[in-house]
Amino acid sequence: MAKNLIIGQSGGPTAVINSSLAGVIDYSLSSDKVGKVFGMINGIEGLLEENIIDLTSMFYNLPHEVNRLKHSPAMFLGSCRYKLSNNEDEFKTIFDILEKYNVGYFIYTGGNDSMDTVKKLSDYTAANGIDIKVVGIPKTVDNDLNGIDHSPGFGSAAKYIATSVRNVAYDTSIYSIKSVHIIEAMGRNAGWLTAASVLARQDNMPAPHLVYLPEVPFSVEQFVNDVKEKLEEYNSVIAVVSEGIHDKDGNYIAEGGCSQDGFGHAQLSGVGAFLKTVIEEQIGCKVRALEPSVLQRSAGHIASLCDVNEAFNLGTVAVRAAEEGKTGVFATLKRTSDKPYCVEYGTERVEVVANAEKTVPRSWINEAGNDVTEEMVTYLKPLIRGVAQTPYRAGLPDYIDIRHLDVTKQKYKNEDE
Amino acid sequence: MAKNLIIGQSGGPTAVINSSLAGVIDYSLSSDKVGKVFGMINGIEGLLEENIIDLTSMFYNLPHEVNRLKHSPAMFLGSCRYKLSNNEDEFKTIFDILEKYNVGYFIYTGGNDSMDTVKKLSDYTAANGIDIKVVGIPKTVDNDLNGIDHSPGFGSAAKYIATSVRNVAYDTSIYSIKSVHIIEAMGRNAGWLTAASVLARQDNMPAPHLVYLPEVPFSVEQFVNDVKEKLEEYNSVIAVVSEGIHDKDGNYIAEGGCSQDGFGHAQLSGVGAFLKTVIEEQIGCKVRALEPSVLQRSAGHIASLCDVNEAFNLGTVAVRAAEEGKTGVFATLKRTSDKPYCVEYGTERVEVVANAEKTVPRSWINEAGNDVTEEMVTYLKPLIRGVAQTPYRAGLPDYIDIRHLDVTKQKYKNEDE
Repeated sequence: MAKNLIIGQSGGPTAVINSSLAGVIDYSLSSDKVGKVFGMINGIEGLLEENIIDLTSMFYNLPHEVNRLKHSPAMFLGSCRYKLSNNEDEFKTIFDILEKYNVGYFIYTGGNDSMDTVKKLSDYTAANGIDIKVVGIPKTVDNDLNGIDHSPGFGSAAKYIATSVRNVAYDTSIYSIKSVHIIEAMGRNAGWLTAASVLARQDNMPAPHLVYLPEVPFSVEQFVNDVKEKLEEYNSVIAVVSEGIHDKDGNYIAEGGCSQDGFGHAQLSGVGAFLKTVIEEQIGCKVRALEPSVLQRSAGHIASLCDVNEAFNLGTVAVRAAEEGKTGVFATLKRTSDKPYCVEYGTERVEVVANAEKTVPRSWINEAGNDVTEEMVTYLKPLIRGVAQTPYRAGLPDYIDIRHLDVTKQKYKNEDE
Repeated sequence: MAKNLIIGQSGGPTAVINSSLAGVIDYSLSSDKVGKVFGMINGIEGLLEENIIDLTSMFYNLPHEVNRLKHSPAMFLGSCRYKLSNNEDEFKTIFDILEKYNVGYFIYTGGNDSMDTVKKLSDYTAANGIDIKVVGIPKTVDNDLNGIDHSPGFGSAAKYIATSVRNVAYDTSIYSIKSVHIIEAMGRNAGWLTAASVLARQDNMPAPHLVYLPEVPFSVEQFVNDVKEKLEEYNSVIAVVSEGIHDKDGNYIAEGGCSQDGFGHAQLSGVGAFLKTVIEEQIGCKVRALEPSVLQRSAGHIASLCDVNEAFNLGTVAVRAAEEGKTGVFATLKRTSDKPYCVEYGTERVEVVANAEKTVPRSWINEAGNDVTEEMVTYLKPLIRGVAQTPYRAGLPDYIDIRHLDVTKQKYKNEDE
């Protein structure tokens, strides 16, 4: 007999987490093995409060809404940053609720912290003889997950950063005065997004002229010298710096203080603003610091088609894996060729990804620590390809909102009566 | 006999200044009255140095490059912020060069300062019996020009701001904790761009919850109360503030210092960062300040189709006006209907627009000074309509670069040989 499926979303938003959700819904609606599809509102935290919705009723008769979902950024189901304790009561509550909803498949989308949740839950089912398959779907703009060629969400954020650098390069190219633009990219410990800015280079446009990843110790003195050198050759110099750059002793360069998120990670900002002051004081030309901040992780309007499709496919891969009886795994992809770009889907044990971070290999950063190598460019290029067919209404991306869909459903019901 | 045409671009960049240039080139290439089309590099400043290129040779056999130009942001010809003095020698230099190039039509694209240049040059031709028609094409993201329903460039910047607010709204909607996002929009003295953020509202998505235009004195105390009130109803509150908000005595709210641009205008920034600190101290919830800065004015990837087409059309209108013997005028458009949206093209005396600013009427802002009225929404709505068909290559907008086109031309010549 078909068992029900429940899916949750966790961690920070990306442009394509909902593409994976759309993949899960799309596949499940036509699968004999899956009964209803439920959604946890605000991840595992919502599940503990039995905050659950019926996605099958919501989407069954609205296939075009599944397509809208595929192209809507952030998280349709809401998120949480909840770390499962080892409290036996908490696990009991979770599995009592899952039993009540006749859940046989548990899908969780998130980064390395969320994959830790997948691990804990699957370990619990194994230890207690519970027949629920627990499968993860990876996501993160930071691309810092092990066990996968690249993370869903990264390609779209990379496309946003590269597009923004290109826009700024055109914007600044119009004046003949000397200027410096410092763009701060996300990525606390991994410089993948910062590196992706180099994709903006094309034809004779050399921006970004300098990139600084957190994998290499940052020297303010060297930075000033690098900028000076580039200013000799170019009127307008664009430098992209990771939010997490730090000196050789591990001290963050960011001037501002640090706060902490729910997992105890430092939340950084202000390194661009700090370096702006440094350049103003030591070089004295016009300087702007740009911090796209959250704009880079939820830019559904400039999502990578490659990323949207892969995230969707990983959703279907996750359900199929659960149907096949796999548990404690996550859906993944391996690159089999760069040119033409090909990937192979599969699963991998969740231990590979939980609580670990994949940083940029030193050999993919140039010796001076202010640029990346050709190997990195080859790796990055395919990930931003293709323009996602985001639906538009009244001139704006027509994203789906859980409250709005409810209205749609209501309307549908009325029409049906 | 056909006279040559020269065109220059001046002031700050927008997403569609090159659309107007494309219109000028496209129309001129098939006009009997126009000989060659020349471009001034870096506006009037470049002209004074005889820094001139031949756009006819560049584009004559490359019509698809004209289309790329139509969809490339910033300024293909480069800009300047040069204020013509009343120095007779300077005028003599300009008109000697124009005579040398057999120029009969002088087209200048820019904002109110650039229209002052158009006025001075046409006054000089009238006073000295010189047969050169001088015509302006308006542009500015600020929408602060008189004599035109709305400025080319504004619609695309408006679309960028509304899209960004929508993306941020989705990004922040995923958590159940209280948070405030403050987005700083351009517009020193005119709040049009700030106002345009309200277009992000759709369905049940209420963001932006608060908007503050520079036309109404800003009270930090009232702002804190407004945010507190909205936080009672919503988890996540998004406020859009103009960079130019100031208190009832005219003092800018921005914490940072002020610098000046070439025309002596104050350059502001930092009001978002300042208000972030205020909310953190007085309310104590999570706060982010976002300053899209130059990203909002050169976002070719999210240009408004309405804006691109109107800018292109104004380019053709300007050339036609010059051909018809008009001088000291600028190409303009009047709205004849909101629904369906219709405009009528024409020309207007440049005195109407030079050195003046069109601000938002008080009656289009709500009484509390923290939102706009329905009249404003009706005015704004059509301006962001349509998705511009920006060409893409390797996953990124395939903008045209003057250096790159040179390469293309070279290639074309080689193929021809």
